[in-house]
Amino acid sequence: MKIGIPTSNQPRVVIVGGGFGGIEVAKNLKNSGYQVVMLDKHNYHSFQPLLYQVATSALEADSIAFPLRKIFKEYEDFYFRMAEVNDIIPEENLVISSVNEIAYDHLVIATGSQTNYMGNEGLTISSMPMKTIPEALNLRSLIFQNFEKALVISNERKRQGLMNFVIAGAGPTGVELAGALGELKSHILPKDYPELDLSMMQIYLIQSSDRVLPALSTASSEKAKRYLEKLGVNVVLNTRVLDYFGDYVQTNTGKDVVAKTLIWTAGVVGAPVKGIDAKSIVRGNRIAVDEFNRVKGHENIYAIGDVAAMISEEIPMGHPMVAPVAIQQGKNLAKNFKRVAQQKAMLPFNYLDKGAMATIGKNKAVVEIGKMKLGGAFAWYIWMFVHLMSLVGFRNRVVVFFNWTRNYFNSDRGMRLIIIPFKLSKEKRQRKKAFYDQQESTD
Amino acid sequence: MKIGIPTSNQPRVVIVGGGFGGIEVAKNLKNSGYQVVMLDKHNYHSFQPLLYQVATSALEADSIAFPLRKIFKEYEDFYFRMAEVNDIIPEENLVISSVNEIAYDHLVIATGSQTNYMGNEGLTISSMPMKTIPEALNLRSLIFQNFEKALVISNERKRQGLMNFVIAGAGPTGVELAGALGELKSHILPKDYPELDLSMMQIYLIQSSDRVLPALSTASSEKAKRYLEKLGVNVVLNTRVLDYFGDYVQTNTGKDVVAKTLIWTAGVVGAPVKGIDAKSIVRGNRIAVDEFNRVKGHENIYAIGDVAAMISEEIPMGHPMVAPVAIQQGKNLAKNFKRVAQQKAMLPFNYLDKGAMATIGKNKAVVEIGKMKLGGAFAWYIWMFVHLMSLVGFRNRVVVFFNWTRNYFNSDRGMRLIIIPFKLSKEKRQRKKAFYDQQESTD
Repeated sequence: MKIGIPTSNQPRVVIVGGGFGGIEVAKNLKNSGYQVVMLDKHNYHSFQPLLYQVATSALEADSIAFPLRKIFKEYEDFYFRMAEVNDIIPEENLVISSVNEIAYDHLVIATGSQTNYMGNEGLTISSMPMKTIPEALNLRSLIFQNFEKALVISNERKRQGLMNFVIAGAGPTGVELAGALGELKSHILPKDYPELDLSMMQIYLIQSSDRVLPALSTASSEKAKRYLEKLGVNVVLNTRVLDYFGDYVQTNTGKDVVAKTLIWTAGVVGAPVKGIDAKSIVRGNRIAVDEFNRVKGHENIYAIGDVAAMISEEIPMGHPMVAPVAIQQGKNLAKNFKRVAQQKAMLPFNYLDKGAMATIGKNKAVVEIGKMKLGGAFAWYIWMFVHLMSLVGFRNRVVVFFNWTRNYFNSDRGMRLIIIPFKLSKEKRQRKKAFYDQQESTD
Repeated sequence: MKIGIPTSNQPRVVIVGGGFGGIEVAKNLKNSGYQVVMLDKHNYHSFQPLLYQVATSALEADSIAFPLRKIFKEYEDFYFRMAEVNDIIPEENLVISSVNEIAYDHLVIATGSQTNYMGNEGLTISSMPMKTIPEALNLRSLIFQNFEKALVISNERKRQGLMNFVIAGAGPTGVELAGALGELKSHILPKDYPELDLSMMQIYLIQSSDRVLPALSTASSEKAKRYLEKLGVNVVLNTRVLDYFGDYVQTNTGKDVVAKTLIWTAGVVGAPVKGIDAKSIVRGNRIAVDEFNRVKGHENIYAIGDVAAMISEEIPMGHPMVAPVAIQQGKNLAKNFKRVAQQKAMLPFNYLDKGAMATIGKNKAVVEIGKMKLGGAFAWYIWMFVHLMSLVGFRNRVVVFFNWTRNYFNSDRGMRLIIIPFKLSKEKRQRKKAFYDQQESTD
């Protein structure tokens, strides 16, 4: 027997997901005449744009996580539940969560996106995703586990595999991670492992199209590629990863790479909840919404951010799956809830594209704001300022700023720690075994 | 086939363990005419005195961990291996580690201590130890998992069990943890969980003897007890925990406590390596050493710190298992290695007792230095200063200082994060099942 959410005489908005979009809705509904219930499987908000810095020892995980309860601690008629949503039943206005059933007047799906392995079982089992804090910590552990192993292994080919890092997908995450690995290679690892020949360490950034950062201008792509190459990253364009089983990366050009580590940043798809009308799930596993972020075919269900596809003639693929869209949609949706309470008509969502940016390394970034295209140190300062100010929590900002300042002057990365060693999960080990067994039987 | 440590023409000192003692030996042998090899199963040094602050969300784990390779990065002829020691073979001067076999001229065992469950299987399986960083993180997760569950459970007795925290053992770790839980109860949890009646949360500190902090004076014990009670901790003296299976804590007085959390800080024993002559293992699972920290019965094997028992007429139980002993023994041993190289006689170890201290909460600590006994705010400042200065690494000191300053003014604890949820390990789950099965069959 489980306890439900206390009822109030205010209409209840249930928000699924405490990412950028979800928290924006809740913040903008503060003490607004709605009861707000937020569900998330974690008790914290993750600042995903800095995951790659956790993975490469520049920041501690706790600095890019913020307790959700703390964000909303002074809100009236607000309830948080750490719970997974197993199903929704639109006919009954009911969310079935792992802790209890919750009735809603309005439901906001802000569940974001998940790594897209394109249905490839080998990649799903053996590559490293980097969408969550535990995944970033896994990668951090694996990098240093690899080097500890490389020290004691006499098989040259296996040692090379431990010192090769392949990143598939040259969007911002892949580019930033490749750059950070390049800096580890130049400044940190030679001091930590004087016994190893660090020139052996190779970083490959594999991209299917003909340039990195395809969402930016070709000029910025060129600049980013130059920066990456300066940091020793092998940028491999017009190439796709075909398959991977943990030992070597197969590509469509036939140039395979022996590598114990493949980081998969080559794409994401929406992560909708169960119970949404299958007809509303469109390309990229996203939920089709109208200009008010209302899910097609539902009166009182909304989707925002990565999981939502607001398709129109001007935007046939929907908005890009980035934080600013989620934040702006969250704000607009909360405003519309308040307008409805005042019997006003809802306002359609208009995306204000504030630009895009990526950092490659110290004094190396590309920033595009409107028609302005910046590179080098100035772009890098802008990148840092924007990310610092976007972090939730004064403590996090100060600690991140201190770490960055220190890393800048010392070229150091303090968090070279293997706190929880990475190993394949039980589920993945079983899937790997099943996969090999099946191969045996069909050989 | 594995690669060994490069040989040099300097005699080799192999140090097992990168705790307080081990790093002191290595630091004092810097470029000294010895080759130094350090082995540790982790790639970092843990600052154990602040584990309780990680467990109670005051500090991030990364601030009390420091990469071992970084400590020794400019040392000549120094080698670190992340490895477990499986055995030593004194006749062949050989250490058998998980990565390779390593020959030594001198062997230093600095493996510290481990939680002592007194052979009780129920306690071993179900209580929470707090000797390592992963264990402290487990406890941090469990505290908040309990409260998330308490919110949704309707069984009153079970809810009480989730909100009861029992700590067995009122040494410094138990006292400091109880105080920190008391502060969570007063300042943090009521804001995070306004739906719960936090007066239900009960903290029990159970101690077998008639006072807390038995290593300090009775005056300090009294003071600490008063501080604890002010923070709402139930101090239960002259009571022993008899058994625990995860639901309620059985005591020898018959006053049992329903609790999903029992933290076991009631004792440690030495953690010696395999291969030491069984006759040299004495009371408390420690290795008997002479006044030079030489293991009895061995010419070139030494033990220092918690794992060593230097028993004499004046000190019939050996030195206390605390960091200052390990540090001082490490220094003395390194000095003796250098003296031996100069054909000088070794110097016996003399412990300089610099005092003892424990913090209970904000402005509440007890400190004893020689005959001086301090309490209150001044003692608390001394405690903070000593711990801050003892932390390894400038970064760690700054981040800890910032967190403490912030916690002081805001009564906040920033790290209320469940990054890796706690669950019983597979091994413990199996042991639990086996244990119940056996009970069934003997019932």
